[in-house]
Amino acid sequence: MERKMNPESGLDLNAYIKEKKLRIDEAIDRYLPGEEESPGELFKAMRYSLFAGGKRIRPILCLAAAEAVGTSVSSDCLLPVACALEYIHTYSLIHDDLPAMDNDDYRRGKPTSHKVFGDALAILAGDALLTEAFELMTRTDFHTGLAPEILLRVIREIAAAAGAFGMVGGQVEDLRAEGKPGNLDTLNRIHNRKTGAMIVVSLRAGAILSGGSEQAVSALTDYGHKIGLVFQIADDILNVEGDRTVLGKSTGSDASRGKMTFPLLMGLEPSRQKAFALVEEALRDLDGFDNRATPLRLMARYFVERRL
Amino acid sequence: MERKMNPESGLDLNAYIKEKKLRIDEAIDRYLPGEEESPGELFKAMRYSLFAGGKRIRPILCLAAAEAVGTSVSSDCLLPVACALEYIHTYSLIHDDLPAMDNDDYRRGKPTSHKVFGDALAILAGDALLTEAFELMTRTDFHTGLAPEILLRVIREIAAAAGAFGMVGGQVEDLRAEGKPGNLDTLNRIHNRKTGAMIVVSLRAGAILSGGSEQAVSALTDYGHKIGLVFQIADDILNVEGDRTVLGKSTGSDASRGKMTFPLLMGLEPSRQKAFALVEEALRDLDGFDNRATPLRLMARYFVERRL
Repeated sequence: MERKMNPESGLDLNAYIKEKKLRIDEAIDRYLPGEEESPGELFKAMRYSLFAGGKRIRPILCLAAAEAVGTSVSSDCLLPVACALEYIHTYSLIHDDLPAMDNDDYRRGKPTSHKVFGDALAILAGDALLTEAFELMTRTDFHTGLAPEILLRVIREIAAAAGAFGMVGGQVEDLRAEGKPGNLDTLNRIHNRKTGAMIVVSLRAGAILSGGSEQAVSALTDYGHKIGLVFQIADDILNVEGDRTVLGKSTGSDASRGKMTFPLLMGLEPSRQKAFALVEEALRDLDGFDNRATPLRLMARYFVERRL
Repeated sequence: MERKMNPESGLDLNAYIKEKKLRIDEAIDRYLPGEEESPGELFKAMRYSLFAGGKRIRPILCLAAAEAVGTSVSSDCLLPVACALEYIHTYSLIHDDLPAMDNDDYRRGKPTSHKVFGDALAILAGDALLTEAFELMTRTDFHTGLAPEILLRVIREIAAAAGAFGMVGGQVEDLRAEGKPGNLDTLNRIHNRKTGAMIVVSLRAGAILSGGSEQAVSALTDYGHKIGLVFQIADDILNVEGDRTVLGKSTGSDASRGKMTFPLLMGLEPSRQKAFALVEEALRDLDGFDNRATPLRLMARYFVERRL
């Protein structure tokens, strides 16, 4: 552990995140073919969305979870899986933004993939990112020191979280729920699948690959379920009251679309209270960890303030 | 080897294919969640396309290649990979048929996914099939007897064949080439990527998982490159002169779309001659195999006659 790991109050989370983000950005740039390769426009579209201002939350959670369990392997060999999580997240954004789906022209203040490259290339760039994520994770030459059966387990968990019972299934339910009267059970289930599953598996992947105990993996799973929901509630609140510069897209778009949200079902203030309560619960899930879990503790608080 | 493997002339290829197809269909039905699972419409859409008359060429080639190298493992543990190849092929058809891409309303005589389920669900059903393919391949409980590092190698090869340098890249080039003057080099490269790569990797996967020698894997790779091209030339010829009942879609659609094809660039008769010559070459690639490669030999001939 080369990094200064001060007691809780001493860690500079911004610096921590900045350092991790830099490592992840460099790795993605290294892994991904350049535009001199054919077909160049495909790699251009893949790079455009991968470098469109993503905060790398999932890869950072993966690396932070590995540290929290006291990693027994070099973090270098976790980078391919960490970056693959970002590929999968990015593909899902490209497809969700398509005219046939949410029809969003902007994300993080930049034109979405299909606005820049057209629908066909946007679909294919998403397909390629999803596929290359698995190619990257199976690059055993990048994973020196990891047992193949552990890697297979992690890849399977990630596929399951991204698939029909996870992220894709959540998006189907989300589209189906638009414009219909909703309830909190449905909303919770949609978010658990649509965003929660990938957040949780990011933490689990880091912990499992680092040789964490089943107990530690289980605690991080509980933590992940809660911060995943916190993240979504914060997103919903921001959509109501946030300003366009923070979110990079129009505010109030959920309401105009008839989208089920926490503020709509619970009210704004109760939503905020629920988020803060979930953060406290998430912190209790980390009680068994020492100060190597400090970044995860600080991130939970940041999630609720949505400064990440 | 429980099956009767008669000398070349004695094998009934139709019966062989029928038996294999049945095993694959049963396995897919067993692996894939039913519509009672949520979200049901997603699984309905996935099943619709998976059971829309596909000939299971890739899974059959995978199993036949395993037999050709003299499989050292039970063919049951190859089934998840064989079926995953069909998931990937099916996802690519769903996405290729979308209005934003080839805009095809029919395939194999049935309405395409987006005509039945709408564009959004068609995109998501494709995404789910691609993701579930990797989930299926990493189900180590289905692969008893296989070494994890061999399985990882095969998954990586399949991801590479399906990804940006393979199938997806080929589709990008194919879309870009429409309506432009073409040449044979470009056409060969497009087909090698768009269809050849998955045909080749299907054979390689079967051979590698069965413990085939590098020499055997290499010979099957050569065979695969040739029959992949044969298959495409036959498809192009059928598109010009075939009838709608065989192809399940309108004939002449390539020409009206300004698509580059072998008959267009070489003429109809030279295209046919090229296909027959490639079959002879493909058969020579199998010279080192005994009569366990008989199904592969007969399939090469069937490919050129496009009876598969």
